[in-house]
Amino acid sequence: MARVSQEHLDARRRQILDGAARCFARNGFHATSMQDVLTEVGLSAGAVYRYFRGKDELITAIADEAFTGVRSAFLEASKTVPPPTPDVLLGAVLRLFLEERIPGADRQAFGRLILQVWSETLRDERLAAALASGYGGMREAWSELVAAYRANGLMTADVSADHVARTLIAVAQGFIAQQALFGDVSVEILEDGLRGLMSMQTQSAS
Amino acid sequence: MARVSQEHLDARRRQILDGAARCFARNGFHATSMQDVLTEVGLSAGAVYRYFRGKDELITAIADEAFTGVRSAFLEASKTVPPPTPDVLLGAVLRLFLEERIPGADRQAFGRLILQVWSETLRDERLAAALASGYGGMREAWSELVAAYRANGLMTADVSADHVARTLIAVAQGFIAQQALFGDVSVEILEDGLRGLMSMQTQSAS
Repeated sequence: MARVSQEHLDARRRQILDGAARCFARNGFHATSMQDVLTEVGLSAGAVYRYFRGKDELITAIADEAFTGVRSAFLEASKTVPPPTPDVLLGAVLRLFLEERIPGADRQAFGRLILQVWSETLRDERLAAALASGYGGMREAWSELVAAYRANGLMTADVSADHVARTLIAVAQGFIAQQALFGDVSVEILEDGLRGLMSMQTQSAS
Repeated sequence: MARVSQEHLDARRRQILDGAARCFARNGFHATSMQDVLTEVGLSAGAVYRYFRGKDELITAIADEAFTGVRSAFLEASKTVPPPTPDVLLGAVLRLFLEERIPGADRQAFGRLILQVWSETLRDERLAAALASGYGGMREAWSELVAAYRANGLMTADVSADHVARTLIAVAQGFIAQQALFGDVSVEILEDGLRGLMSMQTQSAS
């Protein structure tokens, strides 16, 4: 009985988070009320407030989930030797997020939701701290991969691993912004683009 | 007399745009009223409304200016043969925007302002169209540079120039987001990161 009950609780939580994500992506964080979320998920206030006390908790939970998803994708990838190059790995992670990330929402919804989260950090210090910590974890994970690229002879430039990590995170963030703004991002664009950059010679080396 | 008057008009317009940019970056677009802008620039409603009819016109003008600035930087760069590699060119453009872009505002202000503009496009179709057109121009300019990289033997991968262009724009957008979120971006991070990527071998080629 306890197990079924936990499954039920998890499914309910999932249902609320997906509904809130659709609302925020559609109308923005500020224009969305808790009543809008209740209507979207078809639950009573009592049922929803049992899980989340307000919009702040909803958006923090959504951001946490996104970071957890990215970390699992990284963990999975880092088991491979040699590690997948950035075009392959970033392609896999972006595919996970741009395609059907939010059930029942269009392809732009995830990007729009992330833009909302970014904007909200300008006014919400707790959310900003949660985001900074999530990005910190991603920087560490990418830095380890960059070290592995070096060890496997896949990267030759003598530059800071953290700087490469931040640049790769910037690529992902930029494509999330482009998906939110234009809605026409496909993973192939990013894969091709990184392959093009990886095939370049610096002027001093040519 | 006419020349002095035009200079005066231009300076006044500049003063209003800079003041509005500071307000939007500080408090967000929605929480800023036209009265806040009037107070910030120390002008009367009559003096300001002569130039801009409302917040929408202010934010559109700010976005237009940013794109014009990036295009001039590109035009300048594309006169060089061979063209500057992405680490050099993107470094120069980002330096222009992250450092003292808005007079009297801190280093994070420009990034925060751009986040506001991005979010606002989700609700404002005219601004979205202006942004799409601005990015279209940047994609064309970068695509021409990618063709020049190929012609000069600086890029060997047989990938779409537009895909490389979009990836380079993503890098810039991502660092603007990181500056808004964390405030610790320096141009060296982007330069190092791109050099690291440019020194990579794809796994199939290694």
